[in-house]
Amino acid sequence: MKKESSYQSLVTTFQRLSRFSHLSSIASWDMFTMMPAGGSAARGEALAELSVLQHQILTDKKVAEWLRNAESEDLNDVEQANLREMTRHYQQAALLPESLVEAKSLAGSKCEHAWRTQRPANDWQGFSANLKEVVKLSREEARLRAEAKGCTPYDALLDIFEPDMTSARLDGLFGDLKSWLPDLLAQVVEKQAQQSFVPPQGPFPTAIQRELGLEAMKTLGFDFNAGRLDVSAHPFCGGVPEDVRITTRYDEEELLSALFGVIHETGHARYEQNLPRNWLGQPVALARSTAVHESQSLFFEMQLGRSNAFLTHLLPAVQERFGSQAAFTPENFIAWNQRVKPGYIRVDADEVSYPAHVVLRYEIERALINGEIEVDDIPALWDEKMQAWLGLSTKDNYRNGCMQDIHWTDGGFGYFPSYTLGAMYAAQLFSAAKTALPGLDAAIAQGDFSALFDWLRQNIWQHGSRFTTAQLIEQATGEDLNSRYFRDHLTARYL
Amino acid sequence: MKKESSYQSLVTTFQRLSRFSHLSSIASWDMFTMMPAGGSAARGEALAELSVLQHQILTDKKVAEWLRNAESEDLNDVEQANLREMTRHYQQAALLPESLVEAKSLAGSKCEHAWRTQRPANDWQGFSANLKEVVKLSREEARLRAEAKGCTPYDALLDIFEPDMTSARLDGLFGDLKSWLPDLLAQVVEKQAQQSFVPPQGPFPTAIQRELGLEAMKTLGFDFNAGRLDVSAHPFCGGVPEDVRITTRYDEEELLSALFGVIHETGHARYEQNLPRNWLGQPVALARSTAVHESQSLFFEMQLGRSNAFLTHLLPAVQERFGSQAAFTPENFIAWNQRVKPGYIRVDADEVSYPAHVVLRYEIERALINGEIEVDDIPALWDEKMQAWLGLSTKDNYRNGCMQDIHWTDGGFGYFPSYTLGAMYAAQLFSAAKTALPGLDAAIAQGDFSALFDWLRQNIWQHGSRFTTAQLIEQATGEDLNSRYFRDHLTARYL
Repeated sequence: MKKESSYQSLVTTFQRLSRFSHLSSIASWDMFTMMPAGGSAARGEALAELSVLQHQILTDKKVAEWLRNAESEDLNDVEQANLREMTRHYQQAALLPESLVEAKSLAGSKCEHAWRTQRPANDWQGFSANLKEVVKLSREEARLRAEAKGCTPYDALLDIFEPDMTSARLDGLFGDLKSWLPDLLAQVVEKQAQQSFVPPQGPFPTAIQRELGLEAMKTLGFDFNAGRLDVSAHPFCGGVPEDVRITTRYDEEELLSALFGVIHETGHARYEQNLPRNWLGQPVALARSTAVHESQSLFFEMQLGRSNAFLTHLLPAVQERFGSQAAFTPENFIAWNQRVKPGYIRVDADEVSYPAHVVLRYEIERALINGEIEVDDIPALWDEKMQAWLGLSTKDNYRNGCMQDIHWTDGGFGYFPSYTLGAMYAAQLFSAAKTALPGLDAAIAQGDFSALFDWLRQNIWQHGSRFTTAQLIEQATGEDLNSRYFRDHLTARYL
Repeated sequence: MKKESSYQSLVTTFQRLSRFSHLSSIASWDMFTMMPAGGSAARGEALAELSVLQHQILTDKKVAEWLRNAESEDLNDVEQANLREMTRHYQQAALLPESLVEAKSLAGSKCEHAWRTQRPANDWQGFSANLKEVVKLSREEARLRAEAKGCTPYDALLDIFEPDMTSARLDGLFGDLKSWLPDLLAQVVEKQAQQSFVPPQGPFPTAIQRELGLEAMKTLGFDFNAGRLDVSAHPFCGGVPEDVRITTRYDEEELLSALFGVIHETGHARYEQNLPRNWLGQPVALARSTAVHESQSLFFEMQLGRSNAFLTHLLPAVQERFGSQAAFTPENFIAWNQRVKPGYIRVDADEVSYPAHVVLRYEIERALINGEIEVDDIPALWDEKMQAWLGLSTKDNYRNGCMQDIHWTDGGFGYFPSYTLGAMYAAQLFSAAKTALPGLDAAIAQGDFSALFDWLRQNIWQHGSRFTTAQLIEQATGEDLNSRYFRDHLTARYL
């Protein structure tokens, strides 16, 4: 019998890990959409047990040995990329002791679960007690990773979500944003102050909003044989590539936030559903990074979804379900969906003020992880930065300030910059698609997105993690990430 | 540091296994309620991977060693019961070679999958070819278990579902049934032929049926903080004790099958929700057996749910949602819910004819596993026994005869007797509760079930697997299982 190659042993091991991830993804989705509160403790323990197991399998001595041996085996391009990604996963996991992995998982579940009642109660005292434990463990994680990588603690976390990204690079990109975005925002706000908007009049029954969302998903190519739409407090895209679970939330007085939530998550979903099927179960088949993932959701929601052409196409479906009203003239429908109104809540933010929310958190979480500030300092800093960027105070208003979402509860520090990196990638990709596809606007207005989605499939989706982010973007657009496209996009749409 | 006792090592190991079972239960529930078809292959692989892991952990050499050593450790009563159950789980798993487990699983999947099209086509030839392979492997399993236990092959399978139950005992119990049930059934049928029934007139919208089901669950004490109601093709009770997931299916033309399905599953659910919290995660905290589980669902559905007192209490809730109609007079509502009509299909059977379906299968599967008959003999035996019990011929009518459900396709031989044992336990328990709780009928008619449920909690639910079934029933009712109570119940209700 021929001896199995080290690479083949790795493939088998990562296949097995992928099957356990499948169970973890579905159980996590269930936790946020279906699970009654009483199931929380047992679910947290079960997921923690699985995550310990996954960690053990991934960090087994044999894996390290196979990774070393596979370097000198005869591998094709895809296999080499897969080996690179395997190595990255191994190194990221092997750095952490099991006890820390388990403690982080438990502290995260606890913090998230309590947040559900603490947020409505504006209970910062209760929340911050749990968050301190999460931060303590995340700092410990960052310290271990930073030592191995030879970088700052925060950069070590950043690398998990966006490989090769650094604070220095971000400071450049976000510094550029800070040099023009506040002015641009002020100009847009002033311009829109002259316009009149007619807000859609509710109520918009949840069941009909859901139908409209399902139709939008269908229009946007979501494969319902391989996924679902459900409800959760905080919209997300979960599940596995073969069965993608997206969620939204409904407000019967407000029509468009659920719908655009669905369009956003559909962008994530189509990326997942179109990852390379032949390599599924292997690291090379995973989405490239969180920022590239976000570029797809923002491509769908912002570049495509809020364009004049798409809104023109969407309007009849809205009118069909909710009748005619003054808000549903083409001009007003477009204007309403493109209005810019700085507010407290990131997930409700328009695309012009959104980067303020992200840069604010980036600056706070970086300082927090690098040990320059403490959890108790967060509310004051939040208030100060919100005042500076958006002119809004969050003093004593924790529920709409630093307690507004669950991103920090599970220790996901380093993730936030992905949102604005994603917006920049999306603008650059849409610009490239437009150049490559003459007549795109007219096709979109007629509801024909096939050429656009083919372009995304060929340039982004089908590659999984085969290339680095820099290679992927360069191949798709001809250049490295350049914030100019985002600025051009905002200027063209809003000024 | 004090060395961990062998018992403590076992507790840790079974705790871990229980956490993996949690994930397996939720992913299985999802598979039957939520998962789109495209997720099927990946889910199957993920669940199989987990089940291989669970088998490896349970049959590890160390577990055998700990089990031996723990015998001589100082354990209290509950710990001793836990050790007894651990040993049972270990022995059941360790007896089978992995190759047999895998072959059984594959043959079962193949047989079940083909059955989906073979049943509508009445294709006994095609089905029996697959079933022969399932039977061959089940006989091999039974042989291995029987050798270890020193009993007949069929008794070895029986023991998996109902520990300590034997064919000899069943022959006594079912022999007694056979001596009086056919006559009783004939008398009931004759009596009901004189009555007139008004069937409820649909349609009954699914959403309103669901509301009615939820209200029944609430009335019956289901804890919605620790469980849910959903829809699946075949109703079941799944999930975990902290988060029990029950399902039903709706037919808009038929009001009562979904509702009584919900009441049945609520009985299973309350047992699970009230298993001993302090021991959860350990084998001693699991439900005693499939027959005892079924006794709880039948206690809810048949003893309580179809009683005159409960139906009287239920009727106003039905009228409130579906208005008045001739079928909803108290007399007709009770009569309709207690009508007896022998038929081909077990899952549609009333409680008087149900045992015929079970005893028939018990006799056939026992002979099959013990090698006294072959698969080819099944149709003729089925026809003969259906004629004798219910006066119905299934000659050439395989689809409504031995191909009517999937119980044998996955090799679950030994399970069938649980249904009728459950009905007998339920009758005996209800009789004991009645004796212990004066004024029970009046309380039920007023919707006050608290004393009844307290009685069940104290006598059944809270004990988990602490006692053997025989001990549990003896403690609760003052005697061993006695079919007299089932006979008395049927006579009182139907004659």
